[in-house]
Amino acid sequence: MRGTLYGIGVGPGDPELLTVKAVNILQRVPWIAAPQAAATGSGLALSIVRPYLAADRRILELPLPMTADPVRLAASWQHAAGLIMDHLARGEDVALITLGDPTLYSTYLYLHQFIAQQGYAAQIIPGVPAMCAVAARTGVGLAVNQETLAVVPATGILASQLAAILEWADNVVLLKPSMANLGAIEQLLMERNLVRRTVMVNRCGQPEERIHQGFDSKILAGWDYFTTILIKNSGGTP
Amino acid sequence: MRGTLYGIGVGPGDPELLTVKAVNILQRVPWIAAPQAAATGSGLALSIVRPYLAADRRILELPLPMTADPVRLAASWQHAAGLIMDHLARGEDVALITLGDPTLYSTYLYLHQFIAQQGYAAQIIPGVPAMCAVAARTGVGLAVNQETLAVVPATGILASQLAAILEWADNVVLLKPSMANLGAIEQLLMERNLVRRTVMVNRCGQPEERIHQGFDSKILAGWDYFTTILIKNSGGTP
Repeated sequence: MRGTLYGIGVGPGDPELLTVKAVNILQRVPWIAAPQAAATGSGLALSIVRPYLAADRRILELPLPMTADPVRLAASWQHAAGLIMDHLARGEDVALITLGDPTLYSTYLYLHQFIAQQGYAAQIIPGVPAMCAVAARTGVGLAVNQETLAVVPATGILASQLAAILEWADNVVLLKPSMANLGAIEQLLMERNLVRRTVMVNRCGQPEERIHQGFDSKILAGWDYFTTILIKNSGGTP
Repeated sequence: MRGTLYGIGVGPGDPELLTVKAVNILQRVPWIAAPQAAATGSGLALSIVRPYLAADRRILELPLPMTADPVRLAASWQHAAGLIMDHLARGEDVALITLGDPTLYSTYLYLHQFIAQQGYAAQIIPGVPAMCAVAARTGVGLAVNQETLAVVPATGILASQLAAILEWADNVVLLKPSMANLGAIEQLLMERNLVRRTVMVNRCGQPEERIHQGFDSKILAGWDYFTTILIKNSGGTP
């Protein structure tokens, strides 16, 4: 009898935002797999689930290089998949933890599809996405009624692309801001009178959480990867 | 000491997808408020939380008319807010349950903002959105890497509007399909060769769950409100 892989979304940071299903699986499986990559917050994911783990729970650390090179990435994910499949083949279940929800901007998806293709049972356990926690924390609706919502990774997005999205989307969630285009995005939001209809949150639900009403590229420059920006393009202010 | 209003997202249907925080609050507060409106699934929300409620938990039913008339809707929400504030004023906490996540297409937001404006403490507890559960169930990524995601209420959307969104969005989630435009949407997806890159799920995680690979307006016509459609406009197939 082969083991099952569970890809578990652990939510954005508050351990209480794990689902009951996630907790039940984490307390049942012999192996917890955690990708080791600074930018994707493996240490953070482990700290979120720690309150629920027995002291003797075994952690399977999956080394992943910090690289955008698709060939090296694919090789490292296949290596990680091999480590997981070693346990599955012995009949041991493995729960891989991933921040937020596994189907929204998680590299777990690649691992999931690769291992499923090898014939192993693999299940995704959905989690609370960061954007929902940010909206809840700030009392802002992501979308109501007939409103549309655009979710946009801000790394590398051009202000012209964002302008095109604002032609169409009632609400915009910008994820993972990088430095290069912050100034142009700020300029665009000023031109559209959207600065005051924006709220930015860093590390929502974590002890070091920071919230800023408005868009401010200087403040953003000091915030890390775990940042979500909500823009109310039509309707209410955040 | 006044009570606090909690707006709790109970997830899409599986009681195990409640968060630990939601369960803790539901087991602690004296009053569970449930909007009574067939289309928004009050009976469903109550059935999801039922396993966690003590037998003597008091249910506050909030009557809401089935109407799109904004004046009547506003009046009914203000009446419901009054019922809730009666308890808050007596120092009793109230937990209002809402399907999925409270910040995504929930009318709770209006109630939340109204009651907060009256000076009461109100907290939103985020939940797992239906779209994340649907993506998890079908093994599909909502968005990976630099992909964008558009979330679009399908009620009343025109095929021309969807065509404009497909010019831009890598992934599209269509919610709440209504009958009027299904044929035109199907025609559009056929023209774009997107029918086979679509998956539709009804009542995800509930006993009567149904999944269909592809877009099929005839099947959709027989499915109710609790339907989510994922379209992979670029990248992998669902």
